[in-house]
Amino acid sequence: MSGAGEHPGAQLAAFAAGLRLEQVPPAVQRRAEDLLLDGLGSILAGKGARPVEAIARFWESQGPAGGPAEILIHRRGSSPLVAAAVNAAACHVAEQDDVHNGSVFHPAAVVIPPALAMAQALGASGAQLLEALVAGYEVGIRTGEFLGRSHYKVFHTTGTAGTLAAAAAVGRLLGLDARQMLHAFGSAGTQSAGLWEFLRDAADSKQLHTAHAASAGLAAACLAKEGLTGAQRIFDGPQGLAAGMSSDADPARLADGLGTRWTLAETSFKYHASCRHTHPAADALQAVMAAQGLAAADIESVVAHVHQGALDVLGPVTDPRTVHQSKFSMGTVLGLVAGRGGAGLREFEDHWQDPDTRALRERVRMELDPEVDRAYPRRWIGKVTVTTRDGRVFQGRVDEPKGDPGNTLDRAALAAKAQSLAAFSGAARPAEVSRLVGWCQSLTAQARVGMLLEPA
Amino acid sequence: MSGAGEHPGAQLAAFAAGLRLEQVPPAVQRRAEDLLLDGLGSILAGKGARPVEAIARFWESQGPAGGPAEILIHRRGSSPLVAAAVNAAACHVAEQDDVHNGSVFHPAAVVIPPALAMAQALGASGAQLLEALVAGYEVGIRTGEFLGRSHYKVFHTTGTAGTLAAAAAVGRLLGLDARQMLHAFGSAGTQSAGLWEFLRDAADSKQLHTAHAASAGLAAACLAKEGLTGAQRIFDGPQGLAAGMSSDADPARLADGLGTRWTLAETSFKYHASCRHTHPAADALQAVMAAQGLAAADIESVVAHVHQGALDVLGPVTDPRTVHQSKFSMGTVLGLVAGRGGAGLREFEDHWQDPDTRALRERVRMELDPEVDRAYPRRWIGKVTVTTRDGRVFQGRVDEPKGDPGNTLDRAALAAKAQSLAAFSGAARPAEVSRLVGWCQSLTAQARVGMLLEPA
Repeated sequence: MSGAGEHPGAQLAAFAAGLRLEQVPPAVQRRAEDLLLDGLGSILAGKGARPVEAIARFWESQGPAGGPAEILIHRRGSSPLVAAAVNAAACHVAEQDDVHNGSVFHPAAVVIPPALAMAQALGASGAQLLEALVAGYEVGIRTGEFLGRSHYKVFHTTGTAGTLAAAAAVGRLLGLDARQMLHAFGSAGTQSAGLWEFLRDAADSKQLHTAHAASAGLAAACLAKEGLTGAQRIFDGPQGLAAGMSSDADPARLADGLGTRWTLAETSFKYHASCRHTHPAADALQAVMAAQGLAAADIESVVAHVHQGALDVLGPVTDPRTVHQSKFSMGTVLGLVAGRGGAGLREFEDHWQDPDTRALRERVRMELDPEVDRAYPRRWIGKVTVTTRDGRVFQGRVDEPKGDPGNTLDRAALAAKAQSLAAFSGAARPAEVSRLVGWCQSLTAQARVGMLLEPA
Repeated sequence: MSGAGEHPGAQLAAFAAGLRLEQVPPAVQRRAEDLLLDGLGSILAGKGARPVEAIARFWESQGPAGGPAEILIHRRGSSPLVAAAVNAAACHVAEQDDVHNGSVFHPAAVVIPPALAMAQALGASGAQLLEALVAGYEVGIRTGEFLGRSHYKVFHTTGTAGTLAAAAAVGRLLGLDARQMLHAFGSAGTQSAGLWEFLRDAADSKQLHTAHAASAGLAAACLAKEGLTGAQRIFDGPQGLAAGMSSDADPARLADGLGTRWTLAETSFKYHASCRHTHPAADALQAVMAAQGLAAADIESVVAHVHQGALDVLGPVTDPRTVHQSKFSMGTVLGLVAGRGGAGLREFEDHWQDPDTRALRERVRMELDPEVDRAYPRRWIGKVTVTTRDGRVFQGRVDEPKGDPGNTLDRAALAAKAQSLAAFSGAARPAEVSRLVGWCQSLTAQARVGMLLEPA
């Protein structure tokens, strides 16, 4: 099916359609369980967020009053389409969901909601859900890598590549064959959307993008099952994704290392509750402050030496107007790290507008760094120059930010993170989160994916 | 609200939000009624088409079992989102829905379904529905003109600009103010999608594109009502639609003649049941055959002198594999016109594969014509060179294809077209279509938009 003679998109479709649990190395399976827990925690953290609740009100009003797929933040069932959209919106608002560095793609938000919704609707096993998650991550990440850096300058890759990721995950659960999976990819890719323009206004589109990707991708897979056909070369055809939305797309990335390279295991957990582009500098600042025994009051200024993508995404955010936008403000993030010891959900919520946070924010600037830029997006190097009030100058550096595969969070840290995410929004009680931890860590032993929380 | 000091996107949003029936000239109102009838006929014609029924099965399975918004091809109610998606898919399959030449945009398919669905759900008046239709047409067409020819080379403008058109129509019904309408535009534009790549494979994405635009645009408007914010400069911002998806976008087109130029009245009815790019040549061939008294058997070859857009869209279709794809084959269209006297739904269905149709198809070729290309897209000139078997050479030309505003279909012809569309699929009885004709022509007198057909 996935012969070398086929084009890369067809190879990727055949891989996703044929993926079996036995092919997935045990360490990758365990990582998938951890990512699932981390994603469920992020979904729960979205409860009560204004854009998430707006999206939920709309989608719930358009769907059935009940159903097999769980809207986690409201503890009620609906159709898979509705649950996928709402959970995807919820997953991406706290800025704590996972990220794959090389593709600059957030897989959890667009893979876990549609996969979970369809697994619940089908009564799939935990092993089948895990296969679907792996298919979704491998397809979405490779699509993001394929679309390249030119794409990311204008498009929110999580929204665009997300339709493919969601289609792969749901398509795997539906048992699509390779031919049907390629149709699903065609229908998903021709619905790919998501522009960064909203960042300039602190508008709510980021949650809309994940909701759209999850629902459009789920639709694409279900439609392929119903017989709807799609373009065969949606990735690299003359009027396909690359032609329309990228100037440096590389089709070879689509089939790179299928079955041997597990991009899911390259995915990073987010430690700080901010845009990933701020994390390397945040870690570097923490490192230099710890090494030199500096307090926030000692700091005169910070220069964050960054890659171009950070300038593109964070550059427009000079005066954040909402807590969510402040997560895209390098100055706010470094201000919280310096002044509060960290940039977690709680620190943002309580302190993003504090005078001392804002004062340090004004003394942070970003500069393009050739070494950091060359390494990006394979490696996200953090470099800062800190000047103290008494005139000393220190360089800080981290080569792998906290949460990256080589500097990952262990299961205890992940369980604690999930607890703090649920506690932040009040979406689940500690005992419930503990049950979720256990359920995720024994996923392949679950005979049937049912509802995860008690009904409201 | 729509001061000249505002950027064009904000002016367009203010116009759509503030549009009142009294501003719309009576002739434009009558044209809107005619376009509504023509669109309803196209929706009915979609019943039973494989891609349409696949999309309907999926969407109906994800929505409520009943509701106020009518799925016309199945004579049942659902939520506005579901009805809008299914009716939009149905409207665009027979290739008989309307087209605006200058924007190369098919307004009916993406405006009428969401507007009708929301009008039914709200119990709006006929006058309010008419306002919504005008808002949708004016916004969608200007968005298509703004996106330009470079956009259309890769993107299906009806899919992309369609999200904005649907958002404007639904937003008008919801009574969005200018600020909310601009948010709706932001949420619509960041979901804009639709690639031409599917044409190469005769895949089913065209119906998916209109379903997507109608549902995503409806969602954008409803979400704005719920308080979701969107990018303020989604059209022309540095990471907006133009930046991502066009190289010749012209923001001035967005606000061109608002309130004085009615693009709705520039919209053409489709006479032939094929891609609009084939119509000028089809009319020119009919003209030369009539003038010279030629029969199909007399024709040795035909050269269609076309604009570049026709080559882009029709060029890949050299060997049509489905009746739908044959509507994008210049050779098939001219073959039916020559051999069957017309290229209507019935002629396509019964004769697209006939040996004589295929034989003439092989003797048709397209050539880029500088004059036709320069006039496009404002004017769609048809030019053909016909060579007869006995060696004579004739030039045929039409300056305005049948159905264009200067060569339009009258109300009797439109009623007959609606009857033939419904009869083709069996979606409605003649007496029901007659009632629809009367209902459309007295739209502004209707106190409340209810269900249009008897329940199944």
